[in-house]
Amino acid sequence: MVDEGHSVIQAEEMLMASSTQPWKPWRCLRWIVKECVQRAVSGVSCVLGLHWLCYVALGVIMALISFAMNLTVSKLIRAHQWLYAQLEDHVLLQYLCWSLYPASLCALSTSFSHSICPQSAGSGVPEVRCMLAGVELPDYLSMPHLFAKLVGLTCALAAGSTVFLGKVGPFVHLSTMLGAYLHSLCTSAAGEEEQRPKQEMLVVSAAVGVASCFGAPVSGVLFSVEVMGSHYAVRDYYPSLLAAACGALTFRLLSVLSREQETVQALFKTSYSSNLPFQPIEILAFAALGLLCGALGCLYLFCHRWVLQFVRSNAFLSKIIATEKALYSGGIVFLLASATFPFSAGYFMAAKLSMSQLLSSLLEETQWNTASQNASVPRGAGAGDLLWQAWSPSGTTIFVTLLLFLFMKLWMLVLACTLPLPAGYFMPVFIYGAAVGRLLGEGLTHVSTNGSHSQGTASAINPGGYALAGAAAFSGAVTHSLSPALLALELTGQHTHAVPVLLATLLANALARARHRPSFYDNIAIVKKLPHPPSLVKTCPTLLSVRLGQVIRAPMTVLESQSGWTAVQQLLHSSPAESTFPVVDSHESGVLLGSVSRLQLEAFLDSHRDGGLTKTLADQCSFQPLKIQISTDATLKQAYSVLTAVREKCLFVTDRGRLAGVITWPEIKRIMEEFSQAATTPHH
Amino acid sequence: MVDEGHSVIQAEEMLMASSTQPWKPWRCLRWIVKECVQRAVSGVSCVLGLHWLCYVALGVIMALISFAMNLTVSKLIRAHQWLYAQLEDHVLLQYLCWSLYPASLCALSTSFSHSICPQSAGSGVPEVRCMLAGVELPDYLSMPHLFAKLVGLTCALAAGSTVFLGKVGPFVHLSTMLGAYLHSLCTSAAGEEEQRPKQEMLVVSAAVGVASCFGAPVSGVLFSVEVMGSHYAVRDYYPSLLAAACGALTFRLLSVLSREQETVQALFKTSYSSNLPFQPIEILAFAALGLLCGALGCLYLFCHRWVLQFVRSNAFLSKIIATEKALYSGGIVFLLASATFPFSAGYFMAAKLSMSQLLSSLLEETQWNTASQNASVPRGAGAGDLLWQAWSPSGTTIFVTLLLFLFMKLWMLVLACTLPLPAGYFMPVFIYGAAVGRLLGEGLTHVSTNGSHSQGTASAINPGGYALAGAAAFSGAVTHSLSPALLALELTGQHTHAVPVLLATLLANALARARHRPSFYDNIAIVKKLPHPPSLVKTCPTLLSVRLGQVIRAPMTVLESQSGWTAVQQLLHSSPAESTFPVVDSHESGVLLGSVSRLQLEAFLDSHRDGGLTKTLADQCSFQPLKIQISTDATLKQAYSVLTAVREKCLFVTDRGRLAGVITWPEIKRIMEEFSQAATTPHH
Repeated sequence: MVDEGHSVIQAEEMLMASSTQPWKPWRCLRWIVKECVQRAVSGVSCVLGLHWLCYVALGVIMALISFAMNLTVSKLIRAHQWLYAQLEDHVLLQYLCWSLYPASLCALSTSFSHSICPQSAGSGVPEVRCMLAGVELPDYLSMPHLFAKLVGLTCALAAGSTVFLGKVGPFVHLSTMLGAYLHSLCTSAAGEEEQRPKQEMLVVSAAVGVASCFGAPVSGVLFSVEVMGSHYAVRDYYPSLLAAACGALTFRLLSVLSREQETVQALFKTSYSSNLPFQPIEILAFAALGLLCGALGCLYLFCHRWVLQFVRSNAFLSKIIATEKALYSGGIVFLLASATFPFSAGYFMAAKLSMSQLLSSLLEETQWNTASQNASVPRGAGAGDLLWQAWSPSGTTIFVTLLLFLFMKLWMLVLACTLPLPAGYFMPVFIYGAAVGRLLGEGLTHVSTNGSHSQGTASAINPGGYALAGAAAFSGAVTHSLSPALLALELTGQHTHAVPVLLATLLANALARARHRPSFYDNIAIVKKLPHPPSLVKTCPTLLSVRLGQVIRAPMTVLESQSGWTAVQQLLHSSPAESTFPVVDSHESGVLLGSVSRLQLEAFLDSHRDGGLTKTLADQCSFQPLKIQISTDATLKQAYSVLTAVREKCLFVTDRGRLAGVITWPEIKRIMEEFSQAATTPHH
Repeated sequence: MVDEGHSVIQAEEMLMASSTQPWKPWRCLRWIVKECVQRAVSGVSCVLGLHWLCYVALGVIMALISFAMNLTVSKLIRAHQWLYAQLEDHVLLQYLCWSLYPASLCALSTSFSHSICPQSAGSGVPEVRCMLAGVELPDYLSMPHLFAKLVGLTCALAAGSTVFLGKVGPFVHLSTMLGAYLHSLCTSAAGEEEQRPKQEMLVVSAAVGVASCFGAPVSGVLFSVEVMGSHYAVRDYYPSLLAAACGALTFRLLSVLSREQETVQALFKTSYSSNLPFQPIEILAFAALGLLCGALGCLYLFCHRWVLQFVRSNAFLSKIIATEKALYSGGIVFLLASATFPFSAGYFMAAKLSMSQLLSSLLEETQWNTASQNASVPRGAGAGDLLWQAWSPSGTTIFVTLLLFLFMKLWMLVLACTLPLPAGYFMPVFIYGAAVGRLLGEGLTHVSTNGSHSQGTASAINPGGYALAGAAAFSGAVTHSLSPALLALELTGQHTHAVPVLLATLLANALARARHRPSFYDNIAIVKKLPHPPSLVKTCPTLLSVRLGQVIRAPMTVLESQSGWTAVQQLLHSSPAESTFPVVDSHESGVLLGSVSRLQLEAFLDSHRDGGLTKTLADQCSFQPLKIQISTDATLKQAYSVLTAVREKCLFVTDRGRLAGVITWPEIKRIMEEFSQAATTPHH
């Protein structure tokens, strides 16, 4: 008993000691280190500003993620290639290896990402566009979502060039999620005066996403300009470029450190001869290529729209997608892989090349046509070095392989877009455009060689330049954007072809944008019923000229100036989310007097508890005057512009002085969603 | 008499004939041609839209002007060089030729441009920034102004590298003027539904100005993004890039046609070896260069600000500039030319090179230091080909010449900025930065050569790359913009150095922008008292948080709802400019009811003339409801943002329902000007 009592006292002493002075060695040293670190962080953040550190950190972290993902994906792909090579003499086993490996990876990607976060499928760019337009979608910025997307994307990319999926779209989304997280960290750490709007962080993140994926800072910033709905805040420009440059620099330095590259240089570096990159007359050919890519882009977008609608409206498919996502993914990928099996059609479409090998081979300066005719080197000897030989299997000309590639990949791409897994669709489109350009370039080489009957003069044509222009033009046409032109230049570091690339992209865009056709991202936004104003306007042009009076709902939480204790308490209980309440003269007249904040109302309730039960709101609170009122005659577009411009949380809508409603971001979102429902329903 | 009568009748017949059926041959043919042309124009403008044609035309015309100006300037410079060479043995005559030629050209430029349009002096970019921010400055868009600026600029540029002036700033302004003219043409020709805001045309013009001057479309567009005050409308992006690409393509094709270049390529094309453009460790050196350029930029901006203030405040100088502009220009240029005379200090600072030769020589890949030590070629033999030899006159090292160049050009640049003639200040700053970079690059070469004692490894350092990064960083720091980074890449077509150039520019900008220091254009805007909000905020940070109630003036033109015929007629006579009038309940209560248009009031007056004299305004006119009201408690910044966002002509300011004032663009301009007066006065 004595022992027990003793031990209790001991334990109590220890407890007290641990609460007051716990046993921790080297207290002084730890204190010094801690102090130093704190001072260093606060010093740096004082000099540079905490948000600047955030931007730099965002760029660096995204570059690390990008590099790590590339490393993992290349290891997984190499494992697949090794397995395939081991099964050399067993065609059936090779077939199973070829098709089941990507199918199971994609099924895994689908089921994993869906089980953690159902919204993580798709590229994420349409959702990022919504968020940049001001509509909040908190589900799309959560940490589980980031994790699901990261793992899902890695698996999908490891499926390789069979499935033909890209990385940049999900990377923009990942970057946005990380940016939002860093912003919330920053907000909790920084003082009141250092607060920056979240919107700025999202814009910066979009630029970082592209930059850290391709090491292309300027096109990242241009992408973030284009992806903004209507107005780009110029103050976001410097932070965007800073963060994008940090991301791109880190990404490229990592490849230097890992000995992939000798120094910091472009990802798909080309070195075309710069003395006479192209004849001035070839500009016409580049313009024609732009128009061709524009037309093909329209065809692709039409197919994409049709397939998306079909999958949604077909009862059988939509049921499978709803219930058996992994099965659907696996099945579709098995089908795609079967079509590209090297002993079937894959033999004629360079199926063994990975995505980056495909792009590198298409951008080569070598004239394939001339080279394949003159080929004195025995086939297969240096096949590892000469990528283009994959395009010229014995027995066929490169024109057949390129045409087959273009025909097959068109439906395969469209089909891949229906897969419910996190993946990007930009890079596939970029490579497809490169193939279109290559075909035209090789065709021109062929014609000019046959026409002039002298190889010396004709050899000036560089089909790689056409592939570059085609890639930029086709991807620009599909996404309705011009940043691919700069991306093509930054990816290859090839500035000699700046003018033709830009020209082709401009013309392709002109064709694709005519008659307000929806872009690739618009298609997805419309099908997913996302509240994104610019996409909605494409299907329902009257949306933004609608008068506020037609769409606004009467406000739920209104106070009378003569309200007493009971009314105020009821209101505070019934609406826990709002922070500002409009005050009217009386419910009958409805004349808007001003607004009161939740804090003011709580103070009012407190004062009532202390006595003074007869006082009304008007006696005790001074109403905040209304800074900006908007009338029911104003259009939705004007309300949207004002809300964006002044960055207020709510705007009061009045009808000749009487309160008619309150416009907030959730309210705008509700109106948009109602319109998108109405706009898509009649099509079924 | 009979004859006279006869002749009168004849004349009358002829007159009648000429008024009904004048003698014009080939009527049918002319009719067909006219019809065809009209149909072609209307067909093309129907398919493409008239404004698109306008954008393309703007790009093409500006490129033609740019090319013609380059041609004229080079001829004038060659004439000067020829004359100087002819006077080989007469140093005095050579001195007079060297100094009087540019002095008289600059005096001519000053007096000519001033006599036609006094506002045409300076670069014009500060004024363009004002106009893009929404403030209208009609004087700066007139046709005489365009003509004065064009001729004045040509004369100023022909003065050559002695005066060290550039072209791009005035070109942006010229492009804006031409754009405004084309826009007014387009507006009068197009139907109501095709109207586009003038603002869009101004943004496009700013991009075209840069693109047609340097053949650099993407940096033109980035320039127009940066030059916009707060928000860039994303819908202007596609037209800007289209017009800029047309301008750049035309400009470069013209050099191909004139046999200056073999094909479409960069203006100052460099071809650095692309295998190992720089060691990864050199990135640190580039970062240091960025910081150095940032610090030098701050020094330059301080001197510039001081000189501008001094010239304005010094009684003697300000009197001379006010009355004897040409004399002042001539005198200053004579002084500058004397300082650069090749037999004085000019010998040590490559004074004989023209502006473009200076830039080309600084960007060369050759290591000057190594080359001048190893020089086995006799001096003067190939001096025409080896530009760098001008930097290494016998008896001095290149470090001395570069340092002297930097020291002399600093005060000469600042002095040249006070010249009252149309000229740009960007290119001089760009070249200055290139010299800073060159100095650092040569220094590094020197150190690494001496350190390693083996020329093989040290020769990897390319001083041209440092010159490129220095040019971008210094000009970026001076103008507080990042587009020079891209401009440097587009001017040289050298994409290998993209990352270091961007890094240096970002760091230089960070240093120059710290503590909200004004930029080069801000300095000018502040001194000229231009109503440009972002510049004003730099000197007077409270400007935008000022409440509207403090600055608004009571409106002059208010109608009572019970007004009769007399009051309305008086109002219409007293205010001929306004098109909308606010209507209040009564002058005493001042409660705002709505607005009426001038047309409505005129109809009201007409109905009175037809009787009904007793009716009041309220009986007959339906007042237009107010879409957006802003209260006196809102800040000036909010009013500015709302006005920009909704693009309305006026906003009514109310104080609890009572009309307190009207915010229009002229009103914003007035408030800004009052503030800029107040902000600059205390400094004297």
